[in-house]
Amino acid sequence: MLTYTLDANAKQPLYEQLYRHIRRDISEGELKKDMKLPSKRALASHLSISVITVEAAYAQLIMEGYIISKPRSGFYVADVGEYPGLGYSGSSASDGVSGKGKREPKREWFADFTSNQTSPDDFPFVTWAKLSRTVLLEYRDQLMENPPSGGCMVLREAIAGYLSSFRGLNVRPEQIIVGAGTEYLYSLLLQLFGRGKTYANEDPGYQKVSAVFRSFDASCVSIGLDSDGIRIPPLLDNHVDVVHVTPSHHFPTGIVMPAGRRSALLKWASECEGRYIIEDDYDSEFRMDGKPMLPLAAMDRHGRVVYVNTFTKSLASTIRISYMVLPPELLLQFERKLGFYSCTVSTFEQYTLAMFIREGYFEKHLNRMRNSSRKKRDLLLSEIRKSALGEHVSILEKNAGLHFLMNLSMNYDSARLTEEAGEAGIRLTSLERYLNVGRENIDALTAMMGNPGIGDPGHTFIINYSSLRTDRIEEAVRRLEQLFIPQ
Amino acid sequence: MLTYTLDANAKQPLYEQLYRHIRRDISEGELKKDMKLPSKRALASHLSISVITVEAAYAQLIMEGYIISKPRSGFYVADVGEYPGLGYSGSSASDGVSGKGKREPKREWFADFTSNQTSPDDFPFVTWAKLSRTVLLEYRDQLMENPPSGGCMVLREAIAGYLSSFRGLNVRPEQIIVGAGTEYLYSLLLQLFGRGKTYANEDPGYQKVSAVFRSFDASCVSIGLDSDGIRIPPLLDNHVDVVHVTPSHHFPTGIVMPAGRRSALLKWASECEGRYIIEDDYDSEFRMDGKPMLPLAAMDRHGRVVYVNTFTKSLASTIRISYMVLPPELLLQFERKLGFYSCTVSTFEQYTLAMFIREGYFEKHLNRMRNSSRKKRDLLLSEIRKSALGEHVSILEKNAGLHFLMNLSMNYDSARLTEEAGEAGIRLTSLERYLNVGRENIDALTAMMGNPGIGDPGHTFIINYSSLRTDRIEEAVRRLEQLFIPQ
Repeated sequence: MLTYTLDANAKQPLYEQLYRHIRRDISEGELKKDMKLPSKRALASHLSISVITVEAAYAQLIMEGYIISKPRSGFYVADVGEYPGLGYSGSSASDGVSGKGKREPKREWFADFTSNQTSPDDFPFVTWAKLSRTVLLEYRDQLMENPPSGGCMVLREAIAGYLSSFRGLNVRPEQIIVGAGTEYLYSLLLQLFGRGKTYANEDPGYQKVSAVFRSFDASCVSIGLDSDGIRIPPLLDNHVDVVHVTPSHHFPTGIVMPAGRRSALLKWASECEGRYIIEDDYDSEFRMDGKPMLPLAAMDRHGRVVYVNTFTKSLASTIRISYMVLPPELLLQFERKLGFYSCTVSTFEQYTLAMFIREGYFEKHLNRMRNSSRKKRDLLLSEIRKSALGEHVSILEKNAGLHFLMNLSMNYDSARLTEEAGEAGIRLTSLERYLNVGRENIDALTAMMGNPGIGDPGHTFIINYSSLRTDRIEEAVRRLEQLFIPQ
Repeated sequence: MLTYTLDANAKQPLYEQLYRHIRRDISEGELKKDMKLPSKRALASHLSISVITVEAAYAQLIMEGYIISKPRSGFYVADVGEYPGLGYSGSSASDGVSGKGKREPKREWFADFTSNQTSPDDFPFVTWAKLSRTVLLEYRDQLMENPPSGGCMVLREAIAGYLSSFRGLNVRPEQIIVGAGTEYLYSLLLQLFGRGKTYANEDPGYQKVSAVFRSFDASCVSIGLDSDGIRIPPLLDNHVDVVHVTPSHHFPTGIVMPAGRRSALLKWASECEGRYIIEDDYDSEFRMDGKPMLPLAAMDRHGRVVYVNTFTKSLASTIRISYMVLPPELLLQFERKLGFYSCTVSTFEQYTLAMFIREGYFEKHLNRMRNSSRKKRDLLLSEIRKSALGEHVSILEKNAGLHFLMNLSMNYDSARLTEEAGEAGIRLTSLERYLNVGRENIDALTAMMGNPGIGDPGHTFIINYSSLRTDRIEEAVRRLEQLFIPQ
């Protein structure tokens, strides 16, 4: 039996410790191809941990191709080859397939409900090609000129205009720092605040945030939610300095943080020197019903909120342009400490995007995307309801952003189901993939939103429909139906 | 008199400690606009440090706009405004103007000998526009697909082909990791090797390397050179784990590391677990005479060299595409630890660049650039020789890369001269800007290459001619002449 020492008091959650131990043993050849792993129940009992912890570790190992689940038989070490790293899809599930080397040919999914990719039908190729050409031929001198670290002023001005008109956020263009993706901006913020601070992330939440901070050896704790979003007392208990939140549309549960919690959070930040909130407004453009709430940054009177947003959701995940808005005091520190960095986004794309925003194409594009997403969502929901799944599912948080949650009130093994869905060409992730927790945050989830269903994260799937092709929706639902409700 | 405690044993060189103290006092209003600073000699004697240390600190403060030098009067605190950070050009001088906010309108240089920018005449706009258009209209599906963390395979394959044909370096495309600029790649390497290691940088050398490592709180020591390049004994004395070198063309002295030192360096790396060499081959494409030496990476039999190169020199500083080649063992660790990161370069530019290389445009472009650089260099050198400067200058390392060194055997104050050149529209940097040192490395420089002139870094200027417009060369030299040899 596998024997590892796990530390319940460590920053790293138990499931992740277990996953890392097993992964290391597979990489180092301690556990060889085709060896059978203990059942989840047996391993849980042997290590005195909960079955759900083993389940989460196994699910991640399956997802990353280290182990496979054989129906009615158990879990086995997969063939990881000579360089197991090459086959490792290290990206978080929400970022689609990545990291595949040549050993493992890239999987073609019939429908990928975990991907943040933009469907090629949704990207304005013709307009983009026209603007690129104009920029390349008319802005030669400007394109060759190194921009300030924060990015080209023409783009920062366009973003400031957009934020003012559409998010009620009035900032100076100089406060906007453009960078090659949100992950990169987090590494800048880490340098700005310093590694010595205690960082916190929502749990469940966007795991890449903690991955970035931990990758630089900074401490990052996981903070549970209630139905209003992140809880304040654990921020105090854990002596948190900097917290990452998604108040306009929590990822992945979809909770919109109400005004009361917002002011409590702002109050927490203002009460002590050096506390900051990183507000990730990642898909506020896609709120489908009602007017989105003002961002926290617009309510911030003490310069404690860093607003972060990205064009990877609103334009294409493969155009790496994100930005953050720094309060004046932080801006000053940024210029001092990090002003030596070159901006990571090419001037070619900065100018093209600036023109795209300034000439009104971005607004039109967002309207088109919202309509297309709404149609996809409506068709998907109607197919689900018409199917045999209809009576077993409840749908949560369907009015915000580009994903919803689908809870199934049925008994099944979520790791095995994920594996079998994969064989049927459907890529699925359950909520447990975004948990970083001990049991207590799962209990909090159970109480969440008066819906007991969400409490079992293995039975709640995140259905991201941004990359879904409309003409495949019917068939995708039919395959899910066959999987969950075998004939 | 300004009184600060400086620590001769600290990792941070004395000049930098002094510069930071003064900068902080100016930012915090302790030293107010128009206040006169002590003379270099007086301050050096007061703080018991050398005049050259004060000179280096003052030069940096002048460069960044914190103080100004008034001819025949002395040094004064500049007007840094309410947000002094906004006016801070934090980029290393070789990266051109950066970080300027609105308060300080961007300076237009008549000739900027510090800039790595590509002259708009040298960039192949028409070809690039044509290829961009083809990519945008013919690769729609591929452009929307998230690439692996290391980048699009199509670009990695093109780079592998280029390295094999032109640098004698045979690697698998999977070993190539594409990222948004070399600085970003350094931050990946820091995560890969770990913050706990001791990093080292050449001194004089490319200061941004140490800036990146130090910005994440890693320790980075400065290692002196002799005429063969970086010295090995100090690597041992300082327990260095990872060293950054520029063997094919040392920046900024231009030294080409000979075979003997190369094998000594490789031997150093192979002798102890966890030692690595980061080989920055930043402008090997521009070696003008003779065939460039094989990179260290091609001689490495122990998987200890990470080869780094960039298209910011060979194509345009504003297209942020660099890459590194990881040895197999490091690649494995990269995929494990850092495979969760999204690639920071947009797929649009990765595909365009891949096509640019694959279809032979890159090779043609390099040939054209080499010719144009050689013509600029020859014209510049001939104008200098014709001028009154001719009898006072010696030119070093003129056959490699996009810059040479110009040493002036004359008496002058280099900080004041830099300031006065600026007023005449000429941007200059002397070698001292790239020193990170105590006196001992300056002594080593004095011995360097049998040329005593280089030993006074204040009298040796780095003449980077990549952004220079040919039609301005004559006038630029005339202005330099007036400056150095007043009528």
